[in-house]
Amino acid sequence: MISLDEAQRYVLRDLEALAPVAVPLDDALDRVSAQVVEAREAVPGFTNSAMDGYALRSDDTSAGPARLRVIGSVLAGDSPRPRLESGEAIRIMTGAPVPDGADCVCMIEEVTVRPRGDEIQVARALSHGENIRLAGEDVAVGQVLVTPGSELGPVLLGLVASQGLDSLLVHPRPKVGVLSTGDELIDSRGSSVFGKIHDVNKRLLLASLCQSGFDTVDLGIARDDYDEIEKGLSRGIAECDAVVSTGGVSVGDADHVKTVITDRCSGRARWMQIAIRPAKPFAFGLSESGTPVFGLPGNPVSTLVSFELFVRPALRLLAGHTALARPMVTAVLDCPIPRRRDGTIHFVHAFAEFHLDGHFHVVAAAPRGSHSLRAAANANILAMVEDGDGLVAGETVRAMILNPAQPDPGRSNRFTLPLM
Amino acid sequence: MISLDEAQRYVLRDLEALAPVAVPLDDALDRVSAQVVEAREAVPGFTNSAMDGYALRSDDTSAGPARLRVIGSVLAGDSPRPRLESGEAIRIMTGAPVPDGADCVCMIEEVTVRPRGDEIQVARALSHGENIRLAGEDVAVGQVLVTPGSELGPVLLGLVASQGLDSLLVHPRPKVGVLSTGDELIDSRGSSVFGKIHDVNKRLLLASLCQSGFDTVDLGIARDDYDEIEKGLSRGIAECDAVVSTGGVSVGDADHVKTVITDRCSGRARWMQIAIRPAKPFAFGLSESGTPVFGLPGNPVSTLVSFELFVRPALRLLAGHTALARPMVTAVLDCPIPRRRDGTIHFVHAFAEFHLDGHFHVVAAAPRGSHSLRAAANANILAMVEDGDGLVAGETVRAMILNPAQPDPGRSNRFTLPLM
Repeated sequence: MISLDEAQRYVLRDLEALAPVAVPLDDALDRVSAQVVEAREAVPGFTNSAMDGYALRSDDTSAGPARLRVIGSVLAGDSPRPRLESGEAIRIMTGAPVPDGADCVCMIEEVTVRPRGDEIQVARALSHGENIRLAGEDVAVGQVLVTPGSELGPVLLGLVASQGLDSLLVHPRPKVGVLSTGDELIDSRGSSVFGKIHDVNKRLLLASLCQSGFDTVDLGIARDDYDEIEKGLSRGIAECDAVVSTGGVSVGDADHVKTVITDRCSGRARWMQIAIRPAKPFAFGLSESGTPVFGLPGNPVSTLVSFELFVRPALRLLAGHTALARPMVTAVLDCPIPRRRDGTIHFVHAFAEFHLDGHFHVVAAAPRGSHSLRAAANANILAMVEDGDGLVAGETVRAMILNPAQPDPGRSNRFTLPLM
Repeated sequence: MISLDEAQRYVLRDLEALAPVAVPLDDALDRVSAQVVEAREAVPGFTNSAMDGYALRSDDTSAGPARLRVIGSVLAGDSPRPRLESGEAIRIMTGAPVPDGADCVCMIEEVTVRPRGDEIQVARALSHGENIRLAGEDVAVGQVLVTPGSELGPVLLGLVASQGLDSLLVHPRPKVGVLSTGDELIDSRGSSVFGKIHDVNKRLLLASLCQSGFDTVDLGIARDDYDEIEKGLSRGIAECDAVVSTGGVSVGDADHVKTVITDRCSGRARWMQIAIRPAKPFAFGLSESGTPVFGLPGNPVSTLVSFELFVRPALRLLAGHTALARPMVTAVLDCPIPRRRDGTIHFVHAFAEFHLDGHFHVVAAAPRGSHSLRAAANANILAMVEDGDGLVAGETVRAMILNPAQPDPGRSNRFTLPLM
């Protein structure tokens, strides 16, 4: 058995982010930038009003209540106005350019307007710069807005749009082929036959890949036959950026996948027994062209764990991400997690919630040695239990957050809003 | 000014989840189930081996080392075998059906095979049921696997697939029209002109909607003109499940959106001043046909906050979710958050990290009263600061988690894996 660390390093070694492509901003969401974006325009581009009110000179208000002559109005989108002189004010709307000479804006609520509208009275002294947004206050020309490796979320895309850019150089989303293997598998639409099971792993992997932002190709189901598996994996290597298969990597007589991966991957390949539970057996190879090929164990819960530990980090690397891991948290156990000493790290699906004490609390964990997909379906974290006699309530555990948004259906209702 | 609570209730009142549709499992990911799924098949469907090894009768091993005659082999996917008698064993692979008569499996590593392969020696006593998965152990026939309101993640879809089902009744993804308004706006591709700004809000909203799992329709940019705004919103009401506009809801002379929403929404409509900062002004209406129309403030940071507090929860309701809010956490401040007493709840974009003490730590916060989109781009939480004199380092703050996966680019590297 090798360590998890050694297995992860074996997989990640030699992998590189896919070559960048230019895409319109519409297609850039959640991808990783492959370029620097420097501001070519300041934001705001011109000094403008933060409020609806009157632009004026603060000096005019420093000696007590002031009467000012209203010389016009300026709306957002208007062209520049003539210079404002002492004793004058101009009606101004939020976002409108502040005329030269004015250095502050008095909110409309603080002004008394004379009946004819040509004069206002300002009761208090305003300070220089009040209610004004200065040109370049948010973004100065030349400032770096996006660095290579940045994840392009909505706000970063908004910043790019503020520069009048409509395309970006990004790393492509990896295209991933998924192959299920096993004589016992029937298509999910097939009717039930004794000794056969509906293929679950392909559905798990296609959905997990999609949720993690990767594109997928369904390579079907291969029988436990060397040639059929070789054909499936070869198609994946030819068409995709990575290939993931399930089944056929254990020590059984029909476990051909590990052999095909070893034969087919002339880059390098290795069949491993890893000191983790579940998901001990695992095969990995690099094709001659450098395409990574993953051989995951066939039990669905093992498939899920193997995906999290080896496949997802590697594909994030291909997609250009620098942070490859799920966010990790130290969680407090409100329930025990049993296990036995066997020299492995034990991964346990569990459900956790944020409590008001600021801790993430594990409130339910899958039963010991569980291969229960039902328990995994209710989980939002994957707890990592070191070799030992298990953990009792009150202890802490390190855990990967799989789905932070997953609500506790028992507690929520339609009016569960953040502030209620 | 009305309270945030009152405004949120005004929006959510009368909204209902969109009518369910049947979709193939391929299209069901991250949608909300509108049906119950009861298991019609047990999982496992038949008692099978959890290991590669030999199936045998545990009684045969109870009296000390046993020699057993190997009568054949059974692979995953094979049909049932004849009954196993005392003194016999059968070679069996993981997932293969356990023959009648056998009640346990001895791992291949624990067996001594006689040279001709027709006999094995088992050194230790095995217990009844060892290394065997019983039919129905994970899922029993009739058990409820999916309830209405469940979010269909990868594992739940896998469970559905295990039942041979390939479609599900789900709530549709809301289709949301987005309209930007303002004379100062130019298309993001347009060149820069004094007094004009590139439209940022539409990009922010389209990407935010997409990331939250909604479909979008770009309704373009409307000038500050009643008819033009009315045309844009009417198109949205006709084509979409919800309409979101930005700008034109303040007290300024050119703020027509609030008027159009009030006029156009015969269901009910209201223009509000809410005791929050930013995003104080807000308009909401229900069209005659029941389509919600949101009028968000035009400053981009206000748009983001208004989206989080009003639009996203309402659209999640339309999509069938029961938990409408982002996950909330109590975070420890490693930096101060200044503010002033003004009777509002203050929403501050900030960046937080999980630390080894089990707490979420706020390590940077947007400057006071900030309208900085750049600060928002670096944020992964939205802190909620109650009215008062601000918070100092060491205090705690409640916060919505906007993007739990967002890494700290300064700390990460390609080998940042969960276990290293």
